[in-house]
Amino acid sequence: MPQEPADLSVVADPPQAAAASHPIGDQRGARLGGLLNREPGIVAAGTPVLTDALAQQAVPVESVDWRPPVPGATEPLATVLGHPKHAAANATAVKRLLASRPHLVDVRPAGEALGLTAGTFFHAGPPVTWERASGPMRGALIGAMLAEGLADDPEAAERRLARGDAGPVTLDSCHHHRTVGPMAGVVGPSMWMFVIEDAEHGGTAFCSLNEGLGKVLRYGAYGPEVVDRLHWMSAVLGPALRAAIRRHGPVDLKAIMAQALQMGDELHNRNRAATSLFVRELAADLAEVEGGAEVLRFIGGNDHFFLNLAMAAGKGAADAARDVPGSSLVVAMARNGTDFGIQLSGTGDRWFTGPAGVPDGLYLGSYGPGDANPDIGDSTITETTGLGGFAMAAAPAIVRFIGGEVPDALAATQRMYEITLAENPVFQVPILSFRGTPTGIDATLVARTGILPVVNTGIAGRVAGTGQVGAGLVSPPAKIFTDAVTALAETLRP
Amino acid sequence: MPQEPADLSVVADPPQAAAASHPIGDQRGARLGGLLNREPGIVAAGTPVLTDALAQQAVPVESVDWRPPVPGATEPLATVLGHPKHAAANATAVKRLLASRPHLVDVRPAGEALGLTAGTFFHAGPPVTWERASGPMRGALIGAMLAEGLADDPEAAERRLARGDAGPVTLDSCHHHRTVGPMAGVVGPSMWMFVIEDAEHGGTAFCSLNEGLGKVLRYGAYGPEVVDRLHWMSAVLGPALRAAIRRHGPVDLKAIMAQALQMGDELHNRNRAATSLFVRELAADLAEVEGGAEVLRFIGGNDHFFLNLAMAAGKGAADAARDVPGSSLVVAMARNGTDFGIQLSGTGDRWFTGPAGVPDGLYLGSYGPGDANPDIGDSTITETTGLGGFAMAAAPAIVRFIGGEVPDALAATQRMYEITLAENPVFQVPILSFRGTPTGIDATLVARTGILPVVNTGIAGRVAGTGQVGAGLVSPPAKIFTDAVTALAETLRP
Repeated sequence: MPQEPADLSVVADPPQAAAASHPIGDQRGARLGGLLNREPGIVAAGTPVLTDALAQQAVPVESVDWRPPVPGATEPLATVLGHPKHAAANATAVKRLLASRPHLVDVRPAGEALGLTAGTFFHAGPPVTWERASGPMRGALIGAMLAEGLADDPEAAERRLARGDAGPVTLDSCHHHRTVGPMAGVVGPSMWMFVIEDAEHGGTAFCSLNEGLGKVLRYGAYGPEVVDRLHWMSAVLGPALRAAIRRHGPVDLKAIMAQALQMGDELHNRNRAATSLFVRELAADLAEVEGGAEVLRFIGGNDHFFLNLAMAAGKGAADAARDVPGSSLVVAMARNGTDFGIQLSGTGDRWFTGPAGVPDGLYLGSYGPGDANPDIGDSTITETTGLGGFAMAAAPAIVRFIGGEVPDALAATQRMYEITLAENPVFQVPILSFRGTPTGIDATLVARTGILPVVNTGIAGRVAGTGQVGAGLVSPPAKIFTDAVTALAETLRP
Repeated sequence: MPQEPADLSVVADPPQAAAASHPIGDQRGARLGGLLNREPGIVAAGTPVLTDALAQQAVPVESVDWRPPVPGATEPLATVLGHPKHAAANATAVKRLLASRPHLVDVRPAGEALGLTAGTFFHAGPPVTWERASGPMRGALIGAMLAEGLADDPEAAERRLARGDAGPVTLDSCHHHRTVGPMAGVVGPSMWMFVIEDAEHGGTAFCSLNEGLGKVLRYGAYGPEVVDRLHWMSAVLGPALRAAIRRHGPVDLKAIMAQALQMGDELHNRNRAATSLFVRELAADLAEVEGGAEVLRFIGGNDHFFLNLAMAAGKGAADAARDVPGSSLVVAMARNGTDFGIQLSGTGDRWFTGPAGVPDGLYLGSYGPGDANPDIGDSTITETTGLGGFAMAAAPAIVRFIGGEVPDALAATQRMYEITLAENPVFQVPILSFRGTPTGIDATLVARTGILPVVNTGIAGRVAGTGQVGAGLVSPPAKIFTDAVTALAETLRP
């Protein structure tokens, strides 16, 4: 073990190797490499006081944005960054993530597609029990019980969920079943799922269909209109989409997403372009199937419809990057409304969790921060794959939905290049002269710099049954990255 | 008359009055006004040599981007700018342009909607004869003769067009009939037209339906596939769109256009977002009418379909601003492939024309600049109303279609604020922190600064029958603005 890990945390990750092995190159590594290769001169790290003083005296000085690693990260960082396999493992993992080619191939009921049986529900984020579940997660589970016909009223549903009355209810994480769900992300057997296939690696991924905004199950609402809509989605929306997609053939989601990024979407909270392109792609086939006009009207009224497709595409890409020994690439970031959890490529199915934060943003109507539930949902699969908060420079208009000013959106994307392994050659940001979105979060870069992934997200009401109350920005707790790097270091010790 | 018009050309247009009377204010006027109201100091105009020298000596200096007026413009500028009614006339005219609320209310054959009879054709740009018509204009007229059944083959069509064999052929400018047409813009009686109504002022405007790209009539192609497509458009596309729009009710084009500007369109050569939003808006109704699926497939395959709707909307807005005595607002910019013409609000139906230039841009396949026809089409109605080249900052990805780099697109929009009267409060550019697009070209500002309107445009092959060969940027000749201001000055002399 090196004895001066504070220094190693800056230089141990070989920047030249990183730049050579990644698709477009690690900008941060390249910059440090450039400094290290140059003639001796004044290089100031950290606090700007020295830099400023020298600059005022017209002394040439190069400033490096260095800061100490996150507390507790120094030793495990030294182990991981010093390991000869680490850089190559990350290169392999992020290459697989980037190479993924998600296609929408089918729409099927979860019972059939995922083998989900009555009384079992999947949910967003790391595993959670009813006892620890937040208001919107409980509300969504109540609504799903009603929609599945497992309870006659919310009270009965809640009793059964809480005590297992009349047979056990089983909960499991969507992520354990190649599935993602927005917000509460509750999936029951009767709900229809998008089925995505990765044409590059052959993987499959699933996501539920988007219900629209406002009082909807995923935000924890469970009133009659919520349940009625779910029944309509199972009776009309799912079958019509299935028929249209089978007529159309596989829909290339990557092509739609690449276009949408050039049309002001970041594919987490702005999906207006992608939704419109998806409607346009499928409209003729929908026009020729039963219920098609009704479905076109429903999708046409919901700017967020494509979100669930972007999520399924992201899940497919992230799963393709799993299980590369030694890799510190983040392959899952997800919240259940109580915990924020991540998984790394090199640490298998283990979750690293901490308390979910409350987003900072804009509120609908008379709602305010006091109404907000902590962060919830699997939709952070978008940020995990270089979209959402990471791609906000492509979507300056999103500040009207989540708060802040246009330069904040640009700065968010720019900052994320500091903690990611690659730039996506297909997902480009025109205003950054077509630079690829920062893609593939490296937990060691997060632990080393303290720069946390930026997530933009909807905000659920904390009381079960409320629905959406706003949208804003949030970050995961720093500790889970340190924990993850620590666990990865364990796998690398001889 | 003032005796020192060169000075007056900078200060005669009262900047405070302009700022007060325009919706958002004349930035250029406000800046000059700020300088004029300030304590005496060093203000350098024109060449940067003095400014740079003073700045190097740390002397505070304010630089004004002044340049002499276009040759021949000084005296008429003094008359127009010195006239007490001029500023108010411009404010009235541009307010009407901005207030326009275009709705798509119907689709009808030109014979029925415009009273067009067999043997009469409308065309783009200022009036032109067969003798002076360029290759693509001649090609489009030949194709229209074939489509209308007025000739059996191209040779017969050409003979009749050239010599009036078997009865006269009459040509007139679209603009004279509340109509616009892209590129050659040829309209015959059997072609179906979008019918736009301005919900604010009650005006009506028309534009033909978009055929797609490549070998199409508007680019001067007239082969069998072109004529067959025109017949299909009259038999299927027009009637299906009419049925769908009548089911749907009026379509608010301004709302779609405002969204599209936040989605990377500039609505001249990028209409991908607007086309997608339009499909999404009308898809359910199209699904319920005869031929709807076929029409959805046709529109879905053509990113430019919305262009003709943006043009009709622009024509309605520009026509609303016509005939304000004393106004130097440009209410038409149009090209017929030979001449580039403009009209001012204060000079009635008079055209001011000069030679159309050849666009500078990117070419398709093996085509090059030698294959390009001079600038052609009424699609400059988009620039006339603050879109197209004026809104390129909203559409950075357009540089992949017309050439140049992303900063060029931003700079083009920024430059147009110098020659426009207002910023559109509805058409906003997110990346400029939601600043409104520069709207309403003031011919006096063009003549005074020499800054020419920037137009982005498709490029037609110069040989009749070729079709599209590229896309790029072009400007009108400076002289036509001087001529227009000179004519306006005549109307203001006692």
